Amino acid sequence: MNDMVKSELVRPGAGVAELAEALIACPSVTPATGLVFDCLEEMLVPLGFAIHRAVVGEAPDGPVENLFAIRTGPEGSRHFAYAGHVDVVPPGEGWSSAPFAPERRGELLYGRGAVDMKGSVAAFIAALRDIPREAGTISLIITGDEEGAATFGTVKIIEHMREAGINPDLILVGEPTSVNRLGDMIKVGRRGSVNMWIEVEGQQGHVAYPHLADNPITRLVAMLSELKAIKLDEGTDWFQPSNLEVTDIACGNPATNVIPQKASARISIRFNDLHTGESLSKLVREIGAKHGASVRPVISGEAFLTPPGEFSAIVVDAIRAETGLDTEISTSGGTSDARFLKALAPVIEFGLCNATMHKKDEAVAIPDLEALSRIYARIAIAGLKRA
Amino acid sequence: MNDMVKSELVRPGAGVAELAEALIACPSVTPATGLVFDCLEEMLVPLGFAIHRAVVGEAPDGPVENLFAIRTGPEGSRHFAYAGHVDVVPPGEGWSSAPFAPERRGELLYGRGAVDMKGSVAAFIAALRDIPREAGTISLIITGDEEGAATFGTVKIIEHMREAGINPDLILVGEPTSVNRLGDMIKVGRRGSVNMWIEVEGQQGHVAYPHLADNPITRLVAMLSELKAIKLDEGTDWFQPSNLEVTDIACGNPATNVIPQKASARISIRFNDLHTGESLSKLVREIGAKHGASVRPVISGEAFLTPPGEFSAIVVDAIRAETGLDTEISTSGGTSDARFLKALAPVIEFGLCNATMHKKDEAVAIPDLEALSRIYARIAIAGLKRA
Repeated sequence: MNDMVKSELVRPGAGVAELAEALIACPSVTPATGLVFDCLEEMLVPLGFAIHRAVVGEAPDGPVENLFAIRTGPEGSRHFAYAGHVDVVPPGEGWSSAPFAPERRGELLYGRGAVDMKGSVAAFIAALRDIPREAGTISLIITGDEEGAATFGTVKIIEHMREAGINPDLILVGEPTSVNRLGDMIKVGRRGSVNMWIEVEGQQGHVAYPHLADNPITRLVAMLSELKAIKLDEGTDWFQPSNLEVTDIACGNPATNVIPQKASARISIRFNDLHTGESLSKLVREIGAKHGASVRPVISGEAFLTPPGEFSAIVVDAIRAETGLDTEISTSGGTSDARFLKALAPVIEFGLCNATMHKKDEAVAIPDLEALSRIYARIAIAGLKRA
Repeated sequence: MNDMVKSELVRPGAGVAELAEALIACPSVTPATGLVFDCLEEMLVPLGFAIHRAVVGEAPDGPVENLFAIRTGPEGSRHFAYAGHVDVVPPGEGWSSAPFAPERRGELLYGRGAVDMKGSVAAFIAALRDIPREAGTISLIITGDEEGAATFGTVKIIEHMREAGINPDLILVGEPTSVNRLGDMIKVGRRGSVNMWIEVEGQQGHVAYPHLADNPITRLVAMLSELKAIKLDEGTDWFQPSNLEVTDIACGNPATNVIPQKASARISIRFNDLHTGESLSKLVREIGAKHGASVRPVISGEAFLTPPGEFSAIVVDAIRAETGLDTEISTSGGTSDARFLKALAPVIEFGLCNATMHKKDEAVAIPDLEALSRIYARIAIAGLKRA
């Protein structure tokens, strides 16, 4: 990358809205590589960050670019990490302005990724000017594959950090967690998710002679009935009860007088941190064994929880100081890369309002960008202080 | 029909095997009309029978020819009816001889319908010579639509009999009930059969927010589980317990994170005479209502039972007198036209060995035809006597 290109991507001393515009102007439908990372690098190098970039993986889930940036504080200082992504979902149709040509209309800045989550990345980078190097170590964990398969994304950056012996003390994920007003909600956890494919093989036969056959539907119904009768848990202080749904059943037997050979079903379990994908797979397999069913689980993500305490108090206080709002501490919603990052350090998610994310005419309020940047600075500075 | 044609179909004074050959030589794949009934008429008129023939119905289940023949006994005498069919299932491939060209090889007579059931019809007609007119009224209820839809068959003859005020006292159905040796089994009943299509409509939604959806599979599984838990009965002296099988389940939802809108199942109930198709439909509908399921029943046939007693004793005694066998009195197997005839009078089924029925190279042993004719004569004569 030469200086000519650099200087075209972002103006030195740009404000948070200009940083967001620069990132939005780099098309980066998931999985993302190249230009948008050049832009990030150009923003971070002048702020004293060392940059590690890597392109990994192959089609269909890759190639994916990832970036790890670190500015080391004084010996023995704490380490605060910001995690996010610069890939975006496809723009779709019907936009009022071109999705990758950022456009301001009144207080709003339009463009794909405005809230999910180039706006948040811009807010954190803008905040860096207000975080003195002496406060401690700061890093950015930025992937080009959060909206896709996530096969070659954050997990690969975590591998790099482990190899380099880098361990943050706290991680803030900039996903858009606010609902109606900036700061009204943060996430300290997410439920896990596992799908399981169940198959029962019986013995085909004539329906008039059931003693000569073995009806797989009878066993499948008994198994599903047993599964639905299980109370996985009653919920926790921070999570609603885990829930199991049967999302499909199938047999495909057109003959009214025939007991079929095979029957199958698929279940989906959304679970809190009392379980793991593996513990639930074991449970369902054990029940399946009683009914002669085979069970093939695919774990989409594990549950995580950063129990409310010191870290959440820092975030809540920072939000209140800038907005006056009392934040709701939530564990609702789908999965995020926090499912991977929880292995490194306590993780909390906080970002912009999510009303327009993944929709056409995605937009962020510029005053929200500015407030978010100030809140991020407060969180980082407080997070870097020793208790 | 002129005398030329008549004289070509059957030789006056023909033995039972020749009568069977004459019927087999008239191709009559279901639904049957015409020639085979001409042949029957030619056999019965010289024996003093009045003939009623009618062609009813249209494609695809018709047209169908039916024949009712009656020879009235003395005033106040009893009425014994023989019921059967002259239609046959399609011959299929691979015969050793032409299926509609009867061929004797050793003791066996080959041809489509040899045992199911032109052989039996021939045996009863041959028996008529040994049943004196003074013994009582004899009738033959012969349809051309037993092997097909049965829409325009025996039910139409029953309508004719009712309109004519004709009521038999006993009915013998000549279906091939023997298994290994002629006379080893008779049927005094058959189970009924009903299929039901079950559908549950729910409310589609995201699997992460089950409280905003209504999973139809949950309700379907609960309903099927409840149905399978029902003990319909414990069987009777003459029937095994009624049985319910789930023969299909379906949903067709490819999305792992979606609670589907609809789910369906199909059940089959084989039931004894403690139930009717209607009583079972009502039961399943009531259980369905609890689970918000719609139930569409299609009754294939009602159960019937002629409780063992006077009539079965006549049949058993006749078989023992000719064969020395102790007959098994059974209610096993599929449906027959006895399901309709039971409305008129006590019905018992007894006929030839069923090993080759519906198969290629269908064949009857000529000594069996002769023995069956003698047994039929004994049964009719005994059945016409007042107790």
